[in-house]
Amino acid sequence: MNNDRVNASIITIGDELLIGQTIDTNSAWIAQELNKMGIWVKRRVAVGDVWDEIWNALDEESRQSEIILITGGLGPTADDITKPLLNEYFGGKMIVNEEALHNVITIFEKYIKRPMLDVNLKQAEVPDVCTVIQNKRGTAPGMWFEKKSKIFISMPGVPNEMKGMMTDDVLPRLPALFSLPAVVHRTLLTAGIGESYLAERIKDLETSLPAHIKLAYLPNAGMVRLRLTATGLNVAEITNEIDTFFTLLQNQVKDVMVINEDKTLEEAVGILLAKYKKKVSTAESCTGGYVAHLLTSIPGSSAYFNGAVVSYDNSVKENVLNVDTGTLSNCGAVSEETVLQMATSVKQLMQTDYAIAISGIMGPGGGTEEKPVGTVWIAVAGLSETIAQKFHTRYGRMRNIEVTAIHALNMLRQSILKENE
Amino acid sequence: MNNDRVNASIITIGDELLIGQTIDTNSAWIAQELNKMGIWVKRRVAVGDVWDEIWNALDEESRQSEIILITGGLGPTADDITKPLLNEYFGGKMIVNEEALHNVITIFEKYIKRPMLDVNLKQAEVPDVCTVIQNKRGTAPGMWFEKKSKIFISMPGVPNEMKGMMTDDVLPRLPALFSLPAVVHRTLLTAGIGESYLAERIKDLETSLPAHIKLAYLPNAGMVRLRLTATGLNVAEITNEIDTFFTLLQNQVKDVMVINEDKTLEEAVGILLAKYKKKVSTAESCTGGYVAHLLTSIPGSSAYFNGAVVSYDNSVKENVLNVDTGTLSNCGAVSEETVLQMATSVKQLMQTDYAIAISGIMGPGGGTEEKPVGTVWIAVAGLSETIAQKFHTRYGRMRNIEVTAIHALNMLRQSILKENE
Repeated sequence: MNNDRVNASIITIGDELLIGQTIDTNSAWIAQELNKMGIWVKRRVAVGDVWDEIWNALDEESRQSEIILITGGLGPTADDITKPLLNEYFGGKMIVNEEALHNVITIFEKYIKRPMLDVNLKQAEVPDVCTVIQNKRGTAPGMWFEKKSKIFISMPGVPNEMKGMMTDDVLPRLPALFSLPAVVHRTLLTAGIGESYLAERIKDLETSLPAHIKLAYLPNAGMVRLRLTATGLNVAEITNEIDTFFTLLQNQVKDVMVINEDKTLEEAVGILLAKYKKKVSTAESCTGGYVAHLLTSIPGSSAYFNGAVVSYDNSVKENVLNVDTGTLSNCGAVSEETVLQMATSVKQLMQTDYAIAISGIMGPGGGTEEKPVGTVWIAVAGLSETIAQKFHTRYGRMRNIEVTAIHALNMLRQSILKENE
Repeated sequence: MNNDRVNASIITIGDELLIGQTIDTNSAWIAQELNKMGIWVKRRVAVGDVWDEIWNALDEESRQSEIILITGGLGPTADDITKPLLNEYFGGKMIVNEEALHNVITIFEKYIKRPMLDVNLKQAEVPDVCTVIQNKRGTAPGMWFEKKSKIFISMPGVPNEMKGMMTDDVLPRLPALFSLPAVVHRTLLTAGIGESYLAERIKDLETSLPAHIKLAYLPNAGMVRLRLTATGLNVAEITNEIDTFFTLLQNQVKDVMVINEDKTLEEAVGILLAKYKKKVSTAESCTGGYVAHLLTSIPGSSAYFNGAVVSYDNSVKENVLNVDTGTLSNCGAVSEETVLQMATSVKQLMQTDYAIAISGIMGPGGGTEEKPVGTVWIAVAGLSETIAQKFHTRYGRMRNIEVTAIHALNMLRQSILKENE
């Protein structure tokens, strides 16, 4: 299969990537979308706004791959050299594209509402040897070139503009141009178990997989995603095959499995809450609203999320959440007693069926000998019982907040399952 | 200068990067750190867990750069081939490193508290031709190789492990090995102005910059960072020079400048609140706690952030924030009247000097003809006045939340300045 597969390379252009001011989120998204249709991303390369570097990358990647996706280097500011370079590389001359020009003018009239500048108008110029990909979300058009049976697609680096072009134009055109294999993925999410323990547990299953079904471990912030990928000629056949192995896999990780779909923990929690028609609220100290943010990042979360109190200061714990003054002074803000009161109180205040309460020390400051940085108490108030757990996290502030949020959401998930299934 | 400069390449290894399940945040961090000391990242390449691909990348990048930093491919699961490959590439044989072994054992005893597996013990094996870089935060050691006066450094892909090794060992060793130039950066943050307008406004200044001082535009979610970078032989000399241009730059963007340091908007707001000894709280509907999360992501934010009410459901707006029932039914949750009441109420409830209130429609659902997706009302209650603004955002749900949060924090910043300076 490997020799026949269609390879893509992603070239990202821009000094901002090489000086580290921009994190490249585009490449991961592009890779996911190409994978779904059976195109393998062989290499990703980032180069600066340097003529020779870009030119060499085009040469080099077109030797490796059939499809070369280029993002970035098309902004209106002066340091952008990508468009003239592409024009020369493919032997064209620059012309104004009327549709792109109309698009620039419309965007300025409708959204930006300021007079256009020369640099903005210049964005409507493209090499005459490309097929223009119109940009519905910004001013820089995309460009599709073909040379020696290789396809080169240049798009802006702005994520939503690039994604729009890929979804509307680029991805739909590719299947007609290549003989693509059938690809089927099955993904599940685990929480509370490390990568090496998972691997140990499922190693016999992994060894038994046929060559055209691959297993990938995808760890991220305290959770590990397991993904099976089957490649073949016949969709029905490989779907049957992969489902057999996916059932075996699910059985072996049942106790640590969050969901048997490619979804996040917050989506999984949302699905459960919606299924049982239950509502949730949160009372957050050290996570500062991050759990509420995760829950509300899901479209439609208003069906099951009522609200939150971020009780960062102790006065808010007392005045809004009615935590007992004596409890705070005797046990401290980071204690079992405090989170139990926070959970019970916010559940009542927000009129929900479930509530999460969190209090801890995320660092770098605030630790004591008795309660060092990373100490966290979490409570979940449920239909019939309220439970609390202490745990420790040991990273930097942001990662501590993330790991704590995952722990809390997983406790909530387990409570919902216990009380409803 | 360019011909003498010390170049680095970053090679990231792992199928997870090419199937798009992991976003590469390591490269940006590495690039920033190298830049500070005058090392230029020339190229970044991501390849899969494929022997030939990795081998070729090592060959290729060592032709381009003096320093080759390799991350990933060192985890305990079976698909990792990086270590045996490096062993063969540099002509070594595998031996157990006693210090790394001791480290693995300690981590298991102290944190993981489960029996060790064979794959974990195997992590202490390294090629005998490398200098071992001990990993204080995980089980996989780093490896430092030298070949034909090029330096190759292999590190785990787990961000906090890689960062620890870079900070403690790798970065401190580099200056002695290369003749590095002096590099000085000056960065400022703007909000509320597009990249092309900024460029138009400062184009004369940009043209007047000498060749060894570069200006970079670094746009991100509604804000643009401007960075001057001076390279030279004498730190004092280029510091003087860059500061002259930085003063000119600040004067030209004064009205849209958030802060004249390399800081985020939430840090800038925190600095102002701390400076004037004022406290803030938030009442968030559509942003679901994201503004509170941004504010509390800053260490020490407990000095100025008291708390938040996430009033996602209207019942919470009524019961916790005392928004008038008539206002909600007559004007709607997304209205000037509602956010004004939310801001005033949360400010009083949380006993703060300032308060932000936000209500809007983030999509994809929930829009109406009168109030389409993207409609947002924001209020800021201050020391003497409470102001409200309506604005529109036009992206996907998550980006809408981010852009709304930025808008709200910038309104708060302007209120603080107006009332205190």
